[in-house]
Amino acid sequence: MAALDETHDPNLRSWLDSANAPDTDFPIQNLPLGVFSRTGYEQHRRCGVAIGNCVLDVSAAKHLLSHEAREAAEACAAPTLNPFMQMGPAAWRALRTGVSQLMAAENAAHQESVTRHLVATANATMHLPAHIPNYTDFYSSVFHATNVGRIFRPDNPLLPNYKWLPIAYHGRASSIRVSGQDFHRPKGQLKPADGPPAYAPSRSLDYELELGFYIAGDSTLGEPVPIARAGEHIFGFSLLNDWSARDVQAWEYQPLGPFLAKNFATTVSPWIVTMDALAPYRAPAFRRPKGDPMPLSYLTVPADQEEGGLDIQVEAYLLTRVMGERNLAPHRLSHGSFAGNYWTPAQMLAHHSSNGCNLETGDLIGTGTISGPEKDSCGSLLELTARGTEPIALPSGETRGFLEDGDTVIFRGHCARDGFARIGFGECRATVLPAL
Amino acid sequence: MAALDETHDPNLRSWLDSANAPDTDFPIQNLPLGVFSRTGYEQHRRCGVAIGNCVLDVSAAKHLLSHEAREAAEACAAPTLNPFMQMGPAAWRALRTGVSQLMAAENAAHQESVTRHLVATANATMHLPAHIPNYTDFYSSVFHATNVGRIFRPDNPLLPNYKWLPIAYHGRASSIRVSGQDFHRPKGQLKPADGPPAYAPSRSLDYELELGFYIAGDSTLGEPVPIARAGEHIFGFSLLNDWSARDVQAWEYQPLGPFLAKNFATTVSPWIVTMDALAPYRAPAFRRPKGDPMPLSYLTVPADQEEGGLDIQVEAYLLTRVMGERNLAPHRLSHGSFAGNYWTPAQMLAHHSSNGCNLETGDLIGTGTISGPEKDSCGSLLELTARGTEPIALPSGETRGFLEDGDTVIFRGHCARDGFARIGFGECRATVLPAL
Repeated sequence: MAALDETHDPNLRSWLDSANAPDTDFPIQNLPLGVFSRTGYEQHRRCGVAIGNCVLDVSAAKHLLSHEAREAAEACAAPTLNPFMQMGPAAWRALRTGVSQLMAAENAAHQESVTRHLVATANATMHLPAHIPNYTDFYSSVFHATNVGRIFRPDNPLLPNYKWLPIAYHGRASSIRVSGQDFHRPKGQLKPADGPPAYAPSRSLDYELELGFYIAGDSTLGEPVPIARAGEHIFGFSLLNDWSARDVQAWEYQPLGPFLAKNFATTVSPWIVTMDALAPYRAPAFRRPKGDPMPLSYLTVPADQEEGGLDIQVEAYLLTRVMGERNLAPHRLSHGSFAGNYWTPAQMLAHHSSNGCNLETGDLIGTGTISGPEKDSCGSLLELTARGTEPIALPSGETRGFLEDGDTVIFRGHCARDGFARIGFGECRATVLPAL
Repeated sequence: MAALDETHDPNLRSWLDSANAPDTDFPIQNLPLGVFSRTGYEQHRRCGVAIGNCVLDVSAAKHLLSHEAREAAEACAAPTLNPFMQMGPAAWRALRTGVSQLMAAENAAHQESVTRHLVATANATMHLPAHIPNYTDFYSSVFHATNVGRIFRPDNPLLPNYKWLPIAYHGRASSIRVSGQDFHRPKGQLKPADGPPAYAPSRSLDYELELGFYIAGDSTLGEPVPIARAGEHIFGFSLLNDWSARDVQAWEYQPLGPFLAKNFATTVSPWIVTMDALAPYRAPAFRRPKGDPMPLSYLTVPADQEEGGLDIQVEAYLLTRVMGERNLAPHRLSHGSFAGNYWTPAQMLAHHSSNGCNLETGDLIGTGTISGPEKDSCGSLLELTARGTEPIALPSGETRGFLEDGDTVIFRGHCARDGFARIGFGECRATVLPAL
């Protein structure tokens, strides 16, 4: 079992009331990291920890932390989490323990001095949590792969390699943006069935409901990271929206894979929920149905089979402009759990480096769309609406096959388990602006 | 016609004798940029200009340069070319003009003071010329696409999208290395026709003979760079080897494209030949055969059709360990010209940003394998040996279907045209080390 300690105690409470609210994403058991600035001082970025409705300015509060946590807190003065990520698991845990102690109800004596270093979330602007040198997107849900395959290749939905290796492609790092940054509908070559292609705004703009995890620690070119050591290189998870232009994708993707259909925008949530915070929500790897091949030995280690999965619940919501004007709540499109994905994060990481490809601190790895076997667990409109042919009815009376201008897509995520606190991921949201 | 000036004068000679040698890659008309350090001082990197058998330490020599060139020379004190690239075409040209004047035979009075800032190539270690935030590889030779297509999809060699859009995929930036850095043969999943895959060293290791060009100037997310302005964002060219494991590729590449088959290593030559140096070797865009579609308007502008191509001659050589031991010369495997590629660099750049994808200074764009219609103009062993089935005979009596451990692949490139100097690219070389 992944290491549990006093920071996971479900009875632990904070002297900060908002951290004890039953519906908060950020109780004292979570303590995710991100990069923030005070509103109006966007250039002065540093790393913070979310707790309740506040952000703890970790490096400013370092003198209040235990000796063990102080060096880690100093690294949090940087404008990205990369220096802190680079320090490794012992430092990550030291900071977690230190911040947990600082915020714990039993240490309310600290309240006055700590409060000076708390910024209300409402007064904080969030930024990308890391400098991302490389971005790779996997395709780890067999349900998603089968659903999409059925649409693009009806005769041949799941290709023979799928159950042998975690399929992935390189994405574009430059166009990754943090939640709240809107983007313009992309233009691209659209090819009607009966005529030549034309360059026009995409008519099949979609989202993909994913998680992303960040790599910590550079590996050496030529040297695979064994699956047993993959955990040392996984810093934590956030939500990820792999926006996709399906019409562009259908025309461009052969033979070298998706390119302009994906690289116009990727949105991530600002908070990275660390592997320490996720420890109670470990789950067995996907149970392969009878007849499926066993993974090759470089993709298998008992600990990963036993608890390499993560029961992270994810949800996708849609809020149209009309719904917003009428104050309607966002409409839930789907929900699912990452525990149902065919490949574990450690398998993805081991495979990625199995040819000697070197990983770099800050690299972002997308899990691929998280879809389950049921209709309401499909993580994209492509699947939910059968490529737009079966539009979804919204509470406003509107329908959607694909996204329209002014639509806002919101992802949420959380972990819950009997005997443990509920922890959340915050939001990953962005609005589609009209094509330029 | 791209702007020609006194720096292109074929009669211009340098007071540095080695720059006047008829076979030098680096006459005074070339002046490519790279990043070097003096041997033994690898940490002290800065930008230099190649001339003859020397490297000019540009920033150290800045006080000898004209006022216009001085600011550009100062940017060359950085350990990458990115700050200089960011300055834009006027600064690039100012530096070129300044260095040309400094090295010109008519200014031999400078010889003594300049010589202090010349480092013999033999005493210089070359590094990656730029920090590369993103790497994209195109597929711009229709001959290569057809040859490869025939092998992987005999019924359907050239896909219908090929003549409408420049196909590309995102590559891996972290594993790009400069010429001279050897790499280990990758392992990967190899799938025999009659059995399950196994994880083993690749048996079909190949090279791909490409050029790469570097992007200068960040574009804005959401805003396409019009093809008419693409030239402002292209800094210059070097040689690029897109090492490929064909067995890994064949098994993994569907449906999301090549991944581990390519991302274990990419080698670039250290010197970037600037667009100013290449101006005399501009060529018309590929003349599309009758029946081929005309490019869509976002991919066409008259100037690009007239002189958007580049007549850069490229060659691939092989030197086996046995050949080296016997002092045999490297064996030329193929030669071709980039002017025969179906898409121009400006078309690739305009397409890349046509969906709003933002480009960043230092981005590397591979042209894709440069193959021509003849057998000896095929830029990969996959094509030259029909996937290893028709091995090549070498002067040592050895044969090669694919690369073996100890093989060194060397690319060379040059431009030549009546009435102009011959300029070269230096070498792009690396040796295959055994799998770890």
